[in-house]
Amino acid sequence: MGVFIAVDIGGTQLRAAIYPHDSLIPRLVERIPTKDPSSSTLDRLESLIETIWPTDVAVSAIGVAAPGAIDPYQGVLLSVANIQGWENLPLRQILEKRFQTPVGIGNDANLAALGEWQYGAGQGHHHLIYLTISTGIGGGVIINDHLLLGHRGLATELGHVVVMQDGPLCTCGKRGHLEAVASGPAIASWVEQQISQGATSNLSGQRHLTSRIIAKAAGEGDTLAIQALARAGNYIGQAIANFLHIFNPTAVILGGGVIQSGPLLMEPLRASMVEHAMSPDYYSDLLLTTAALGDDAGLVGALALAHRVGTKPTLDFA
Amino acid sequence: MGVFIAVDIGGTQLRAAIYPHDSLIPRLVERIPTKDPSSSTLDRLESLIETIWPTDVAVSAIGVAAPGAIDPYQGVLLSVANIQGWENLPLRQILEKRFQTPVGIGNDANLAALGEWQYGAGQGHHHLIYLTISTGIGGGVIINDHLLLGHRGLATELGHVVVMQDGPLCTCGKRGHLEAVASGPAIASWVEQQISQGATSNLSGQRHLTSRIIAKAAGEGDTLAIQALARAGNYIGQAIANFLHIFNPTAVILGGGVIQSGPLLMEPLRASMVEHAMSPDYYSDLLLTTAALGDDAGLVGALALAHRVGTKPTLDFA
Repeated sequence: MGVFIAVDIGGTQLRAAIYPHDSLIPRLVERIPTKDPSSSTLDRLESLIETIWPTDVAVSAIGVAAPGAIDPYQGVLLSVANIQGWENLPLRQILEKRFQTPVGIGNDANLAALGEWQYGAGQGHHHLIYLTISTGIGGGVIINDHLLLGHRGLATELGHVVVMQDGPLCTCGKRGHLEAVASGPAIASWVEQQISQGATSNLSGQRHLTSRIIAKAAGEGDTLAIQALARAGNYIGQAIANFLHIFNPTAVILGGGVIQSGPLLMEPLRASMVEHAMSPDYYSDLLLTTAALGDDAGLVGALALAHRVGTKPTLDFA
Repeated sequence: MGVFIAVDIGGTQLRAAIYPHDSLIPRLVERIPTKDPSSSTLDRLESLIETIWPTDVAVSAIGVAAPGAIDPYQGVLLSVANIQGWENLPLRQILEKRFQTPVGIGNDANLAALGEWQYGAGQGHHHLIYLTISTGIGGGVIINDHLLLGHRGLATELGHVVVMQDGPLCTCGKRGHLEAVASGPAIASWVEQQISQGATSNLSGQRHLTSRIIAKAAGEGDTLAIQALARAGNYIGQAIANFLHIFNPTAVILGGGVIQSGPLLMEPLRASMVEHAMSPDYYSDLLLTTAALGDDAGLVGALALAHRVGTKPTLDFA
């Protein structure tokens, strides 16, 4: 039995790991910065895989998690935020040619959903929603034990649904999306805006605000910080209620750094979900929980994909 | 080969039809009012089926489309709007006992989606969204040639997603849902409200406004009526853009009376969809069209379900 290589392409770092064929404990994990003036990201990615390539056993498959719009059927990165030149990049073809090994590529949030379903907080659920809330907001949905991909694999952009008409501008260029209202940077922007409009807060004058700093201030009783988390929780809860009406899942799993903000986020989130849901039928037996795989969700999801690519003739995701 | 019986339970009428095993042309269709002081709706439904029961051939299966929250796995009507006493009604069990024939039951909008996919405007599409806009707004989604049902069959309540925060009260009791903003009654309410606030319109003083009357006035150039259709189209288009991000389908099929309003609704709808979509990847090859089955969608969907019930051991919907 060969080993599997899982790769997680992030905005700041590239990670690659070797996993035994029957384990979630990697034999080796390597990480390097995504960007460096001396070489292209693609060259860096190929070198990273080469660096960890085992000499003692065969590699059965490589799974790659990447941010942005991915065509998982074709293994093409359509557009990747923050990595210049990665448009319509046939990464699967490139890596298969270079390493002579089957490769599977998927959107990182989709693969995190797959990872949580197979190995994490969603085990045993047949219908689940995964939502990751950090710098951006991404999602993945399991329906009847299958990952929802859609026609070209562009489905479950759960951060890009309108929750506030004419709301703040989203990174995607549209207005009022969940990501523009409740991601880490969106929470920080709102706090900065309130301070600039005269709100009092211990955060006044603090530069480079993050949701982590805001969560800390909230925990210390800062009213504006508490309001900021409640506001984000309220919008996330509203979006989740909509997703319950759309998918009728048994589990909603929340990942990403913002979710680490604790009960000052989670309690308003849960209350808003209940307030906006049509009927208790949608949430009375629902598992609403935080992700189990943490920062490793993308990597473990890429591993779950590698297992599929290595053992199935077609790219059947789940 | 036996025949199939399809039943469509509507708010105003019950319809039942007999279909040959290989045709969409019914041998017989009967309809009676849903409500009558002299007998219960369940009694009326059973008599209706008895009335059309054929004497010359066997019945292979009965398919039933019903409005409201249905558990299609168990064949239980959880709650049906406007029909008193139909709560947790085990209709499949009741009908199977009475008629000694396999019965399948589904939500009417879900089954209309199935009907449009199998026999109507969605033929050949593997990923489609069906949205019916009339007195209420319902939906159905086909993913990878399967109807999306969710854990208990309560999925794809596409009319019950928030499109306007703190918007008008929805029939479900929540605020700002698409149904509360863009259904026929919602369009009429908005026009009435504008008139009561001093807007001028040929519709002033008209009682019992409907979306059909408003569409007629719009066609004759009435500014308020034109605004009303554009407003509804705008919200429907916004919701569709969200659904494109969620499902990445190749077809969006629009049914229901409100969609008959013509280009004064459809053009703003399409423009809003394009305006709110993240990228042309979501709509450049999209088929956005009106339903092919018209008023018969529920009945034909019930027929599609009856075919499944009659030929498969389990209730695999699509």
